[in-house]
Amino acid sequence: MRIYADNAATTRMSEEAIETMVKVARETFGNPSSLYEIGQAAKDVLENARETVAECFNCSPREIYFTSGGSEADNQAIISAARIGEKAGKKHIVSTTIEHHAVLHTLKKLEKEGFKITLVGVNSKGTVNPEDIKAAITDETALVSVMFVNNEIGTIEPIAEIGEICREKGVLFHTDAVQAAGQIKIDVKSQNIDMMSVSAHKFHGPKGVGALYVRRGIPLTNIIEGGAQERGKRGGTENVPGIAAMAVALKTECEKIPAKTEKLVNARDKIISGLKKIPYSSLNGELEKRSPGNINFCFEGIEGESLLLLLDDKGICASSGSACTSGSLDPSHVLLAIGRPHEVAHGSLRLSIGEDITENEIDYIIKSVEQVVSYLRGMSPFWHDLETGKRKHIFKEIEE
Amino acid sequence: MRIYADNAATTRMSEEAIETMVKVARETFGNPSSLYEIGQAAKDVLENARETVAECFNCSPREIYFTSGGSEADNQAIISAARIGEKAGKKHIVSTTIEHHAVLHTLKKLEKEGFKITLVGVNSKGTVNPEDIKAAITDETALVSVMFVNNEIGTIEPIAEIGEICREKGVLFHTDAVQAAGQIKIDVKSQNIDMMSVSAHKFHGPKGVGALYVRRGIPLTNIIEGGAQERGKRGGTENVPGIAAMAVALKTECEKIPAKTEKLVNARDKIISGLKKIPYSSLNGELEKRSPGNINFCFEGIEGESLLLLLDDKGICASSGSACTSGSLDPSHVLLAIGRPHEVAHGSLRLSIGEDITENEIDYIIKSVEQVVSYLRGMSPFWHDLETGKRKHIFKEIEE
Repeated sequence: MRIYADNAATTRMSEEAIETMVKVARETFGNPSSLYEIGQAAKDVLENARETVAECFNCSPREIYFTSGGSEADNQAIISAARIGEKAGKKHIVSTTIEHHAVLHTLKKLEKEGFKITLVGVNSKGTVNPEDIKAAITDETALVSVMFVNNEIGTIEPIAEIGEICREKGVLFHTDAVQAAGQIKIDVKSQNIDMMSVSAHKFHGPKGVGALYVRRGIPLTNIIEGGAQERGKRGGTENVPGIAAMAVALKTECEKIPAKTEKLVNARDKIISGLKKIPYSSLNGELEKRSPGNINFCFEGIEGESLLLLLDDKGICASSGSACTSGSLDPSHVLLAIGRPHEVAHGSLRLSIGEDITENEIDYIIKSVEQVVSYLRGMSPFWHDLETGKRKHIFKEIEE
Repeated sequence: MRIYADNAATTRMSEEAIETMVKVARETFGNPSSLYEIGQAAKDVLENARETVAECFNCSPREIYFTSGGSEADNQAIISAARIGEKAGKKHIVSTTIEHHAVLHTLKKLEKEGFKITLVGVNSKGTVNPEDIKAAITDETALVSVMFVNNEIGTIEPIAEIGEICREKGVLFHTDAVQAAGQIKIDVKSQNIDMMSVSAHKFHGPKGVGALYVRRGIPLTNIIEGGAQERGKRGGTENVPGIAAMAVALKTECEKIPAKTEKLVNARDKIISGLKKIPYSSLNGELEKRSPGNINFCFEGIEGESLLLLLDDKGICASSGSACTSGSLDPSHVLLAIGRPHEVAHGSLRLSIGEDITENEIDYIIKSVEQVVSYLRGMSPFWHDLETGKRKHIFKEIEE
């Protein structure tokens, strides 16, 4: 059996998206900046894709800028807000401790430039309290950036409420919606979002393509200088086949949200119930306001990497937190932020399932994780110390 | 008849590149940062592509960074060199008046930061004199950036000589090789290149993918912050299918260089000879050291846009200078740099042919341009003034 349960890291492109990409690459290969018919046909494809993306988020096509992915969109949104703030003498940015590195590292760069960065903490479920954001905003605040859905633990943040606070305070609000787009209903108007980043390969579109929504009237700063593409705000010939494929994938996934959410939530909750029965395990993140396909557990005494490799042997593709940091030996900053001690923050398991998961696969996942956890604990000196009472358990034997 | 003669704007993806992209998207869709087999298989595809690209340019795979295209690569190279220079108190950059906007606009941004920018001029054929570069370098110079092949007029610059001067002076040397890669033999070692930008869609690869060669030991500055991808120098999940397709396309085009150059040069020179017979026309750029597929002419009394639209009616896709600026009404900065007066710099025609061009197509292009130029001149009050002696001709009736 092979089960791909790492859809938060990347998704398989839909056949519809692949076919769109190939069709455009073959038939509409012109440069959209070119005047002749083949070029203008490519421009039409590009602008149709922009309309489709805009419809999915309830904004105007003019408010959508295509980028090379979610990271570029995050970088450009934050840098742009910083430059706007700077001109008004505002050099303070509010964000959270659980953001993606595309946000956190950009904030670090701005900090070196003299910006003051306030990272608001989260509760033990990974939820940001809008009141904490409100309290962190000062007269100097240029931007609030809070992610829509956490990429590791799946917690859905109260975006509309935070957006409302930002509107009241007259502060720009950006959200990294990379894990939300195509999974959760997004309406930038009712959710009070000023800027938003999304990435195509997280919703069955191609890698290397993303979009940045920017509310009309907010001036963008280029991070890629060049030609007049994207209304002069992003140089480089547009990836027309990839953009067309992204639009198709996004539309399909957004339309499927009502139907697939129920399926995903059912499957997710079954896996969560199953894994909760493993002694000394603990669910990371919020259960109610949680991304429909996300499961994230800590198991005492378990090294994340060994767990993943043994699950891979059993045909299960899972991850330990974010794929972007999988090369790193540091414990997850998100798990530390929700108060997990270092020794368990190393050993988390993230499963991000797809809607096509079967009952058989659900059972197989639960059984396999149980087996692997039990096997690894049997070999672990750390676990031995726990069992013999040399160390104290962190979690209850079985959590409620 | 339909003839695509705008390969300098973008090329049609090869079937081989499309098939590679699709195969990787279907079969190796994992995130290369993931530990499990599907992820590691994607990483293998990525690293194989890096080796292929490195072989084409005679460098080490570790010296290749994948980007979203030539513009991003240009931006990152120049910003990185500026940051290195800054640390050593060197805030001067030497470049030329005929660079692509991805270079020129990045330099403008640095100028606003306090960098001094010297743009060296070119001769009437668009060639940079290495001695002018040498003379422009000071003790403060952090970088020299000179393009390999001009995108509008096709002139090939003396890269190896300029590189040698930079080595002697201890100054970093970057070249925008977007129009050279896959067309002209590139060897970063013998050509003394420290940093080089290329773009896949110019050599029958996909749009939205590029590469930056950086000689080992030169520290890059991120322009996209995020995960640990590309050895921490470029955040964002790698576009594995696109990168694999780029590598395949580059390898094929590089291998074909000896064979295709002769075909292209023959076809190019036939078209140039034919168009030279049009009265009051003039070739832009160098004839000998010229990109094999590039033809660029000015015709007195002709508006570029009308020329292109009428050629499009005849099935010929051509451009007036760079596609990236086709929306702009300004005359080409390259044509102004080679001394063309404003009134003709508006009216250039660039044809960038592919190796598959036939004798019939060559004849058809020549005949069609003749017809369209003659037709437009018949309607032009400006041309009437030239013919009646109210204005003076700029070019000879027939140039030698």
